[in-house]
Amino acid sequence: MKIAVLPGDGIGTEIVAEAVKVLKTLDLKFEMESALVGGAAYDAHGHPLPESTLKLAKEADAILFGAVGDWKYDKLDRPLRPEQAILGLRKNLGLFANFRPAICYEQLVGASSLKPELVAGLDILIIRELTGDIYFGQPRGRREAPDGEFKGAPEAFDTMRYTKPEIERIAHVAFQAARKRNKKVTSVDKANVLETFQFWKDTVIEVHAQYPDVALEHMYVDNAAMQLVKNPKAFDVVFTGNMFGDILSDEASMLTGSIGMLPSASLNSKNQGLYEPSHGSAPDIAGKGIANPLATILSAAMMLRFSLNQEEAAQRIEAAVQKVLAQGLRTGDIWSEGTTKVGTAQMGDAVVKAL
Amino acid sequence: MKIAVLPGDGIGTEIVAEAVKVLKTLDLKFEMESALVGGAAYDAHGHPLPESTLKLAKEADAILFGAVGDWKYDKLDRPLRPEQAILGLRKNLGLFANFRPAICYEQLVGASSLKPELVAGLDILIIRELTGDIYFGQPRGRREAPDGEFKGAPEAFDTMRYTKPEIERIAHVAFQAARKRNKKVTSVDKANVLETFQFWKDTVIEVHAQYPDVALEHMYVDNAAMQLVKNPKAFDVVFTGNMFGDILSDEASMLTGSIGMLPSASLNSKNQGLYEPSHGSAPDIAGKGIANPLATILSAAMMLRFSLNQEEAAQRIEAAVQKVLAQGLRTGDIWSEGTTKVGTAQMGDAVVKAL
Ligand SMILES: CC(C)[C@H](C(=O)O)[C@@H](O)C(=O)O
Ligand SMILES: CC(C)[C@H](C(=O)O)[C@@H](O)C(=O)O
Repeated sequence: MKIAVLPGDGIGTEIVAEAVKVLKTLDLKFEMESALVGGAAYDAHGHPLPESTLKLAKEADAILFGAVGDWKYDKLDRPLRPEQAILGLRKNLGLFANFRPAICYEQLVGASSLKPELVAGLDILIIRELTGDIYFGQPRGRREAPDGEFKGAPEAFDTMRYTKPEIERIAHVAFQAARKRNKKVTSVDKANVLETFQFWKDTVIEVHAQYPDVALEHMYVDNAAMQLVKNPKAFDVVFTGNMFGDILSDEASMLTGSIGMLPSASLNSKNQGLYEPSHGSAPDIAGKGIANPLATILSAAMMLRFSLNQEEAAQRIEAAVQKVLAQGLRTGDIWSEGTTKVGTAQMGDAVVKAL
Repeated sequence: MKIAVLPGDGIGTEIVAEAVKVLKTLDLKFEMESALVGGAAYDAHGHPLPESTLKLAKEADAILFGAVGDWKYDKLDRPLRPEQAILGLRKNLGLFANFRPAICYEQLVGASSLKPELVAGLDILIIRELTGDIYFGQPRGRREAPDGEFKGAPEAFDTMRYTKPEIERIAHVAFQAARKRNKKVTSVDKANVLETFQFWKDTVIEVHAQYPDVALEHMYVDNAAMQLVKNPKAFDVVFTGNMFGDILSDEASMLTGSIGMLPSASLNSKNQGLYEPSHGSAPDIAGKGIANPLATILSAAMMLRFSLNQEEAAQRIEAAVQKVLAQGLRTGDIWSEGTTKVGTAQMGDAVVKAL
């Protein structure tokens, strides 16, 4: 078994180092190989996703990913910007199924912007389609407007697209995930305006016929953005397209108050996966040794579970994280009166010790 | 001066009746004419936006709109569904500038899902472009996928598009609105993924050169969805495209806890405008006389201000609404222990009395 380790930019290197520390403690048989990605790869090789990094990622059974991006690359042409690395990995490896749990940790209820009673015990799973939609749809670009009120004016455009098999496979993933949970799925669309999402809705209804034991509800994306704020616990499995999923999964993570704790997994049909924290590269705190490594450590646990078939090891890590929280250890982002503030490495060490 | 009154469906008729009552009390010189729209118009005339209704709307100086939609129309072909009426009015009248204040009323702080300190005093203005983007972009439809991994499979697609003049005019609206407030604008885009929104960002930067006194920040839509939850008061004027604006304005309204209180205005370049509450048609409580008419009454105030040039009358209505809140009167949606629960008509009567 082989893990590609891609720390990336900003706090990426620091948090991935802690997850690697934890993985090494487990005494499991797998190889780890690191490579540059994002801005770091651009600086060294002139491209955010160099051929060598992509090759390593393709050969590996799983990818442990940190984060990419830094303001200093904002002026580069889009194909050279750090984010292209993550988009390229998703597309090249066919990682169409993105799992983003939004969990409110008992000890961190107070860190949420929401009233405690609305988030205590919150445990939603957002499933986002990750290789289709307007993210990758062709054609796209700039041109003279071919028609409309401003015909002839400079214009930019993108194409939202979903084929039926793409919708079907993510719908199966969502219904199957729901079977292991509370058997309730909310499919988020904008069928009242978009052809793509009317088709999404129609297709989801068809697939649902194979899962009569799972309850399905449909919700417009604008309403979903509201209901998440109003009563997040009304949701269980939420699934949607790439663009809406980008927005709603971030909103849901932030609701928990524990975004520094939330892992994510992006899988293809062979269960090869990319595992990364839900938060970003936070260039403002990079290099200070204060970032929270727990989302990355928990991503490593997801990796063991989904791609490396090591359920027991995954649970050991998760239990160790619970233990350090119970010990009152907190990085700055989740610190509150009465708990002990620790840095990135101390937090990693504490998890290792708790194992 | 002429006002087209379009109550629509669900609670629309009840809440608009109260706003009309309030307008009549003001003793101003304008004519009001009503027409059917949405599902009600479909039932009577077979179309959600009959020619006669559109004609009335076009001739009027302003439109007072209730809400459209009911589950019972869900099975109709999209062009016949109630929502098409509001989309058709926006497009036909060129109502490109949508103003959606997200205000947390002092007396209603407790109704928010967020902790009181995060929303007390909240006053954001969301400006949403309303006649472009993927809402109206052609081509759109169903076909066989012309390329890609699933070439030949059934596919649906839509086109996101913005021309430069469309972005420029909404940017001017946003910067000018900011000048009357705190001189701070957040432009929301997804420039890291979409051509359309890289163009949006570039164009906004160009227009900003004419407003050196206004501070401009750019934020990705996923981050905006998070920051609204984390610290809504960090925003002042937020402006964005049609699709992102749909999602973020609803999220922001719900954050205030006062969605039953929030008006909206949709203006064209001649200051002709459509005024409607931010909430929907709520078919579940329609006909019960319990809906909150205040968002519609406050929309009537916005109408007086923006389209009918009656600032004083607008302020009188707003002051009257403050007064009934101070008296402790509340409809069910904003009721809390210690206040007096009233119905739709009672609330309207109280506003009339407070005038
Ligand atoms: C970095 C960016 C391209 C990416 C996305 O939009 O998918 C990020 O926001 C995410 O959610 O992983
Ligand atoms: C009813 C629907 C078409 C509409 C929209 O998406 O614009 C509504 O959600 C709104 O925000 O006014």
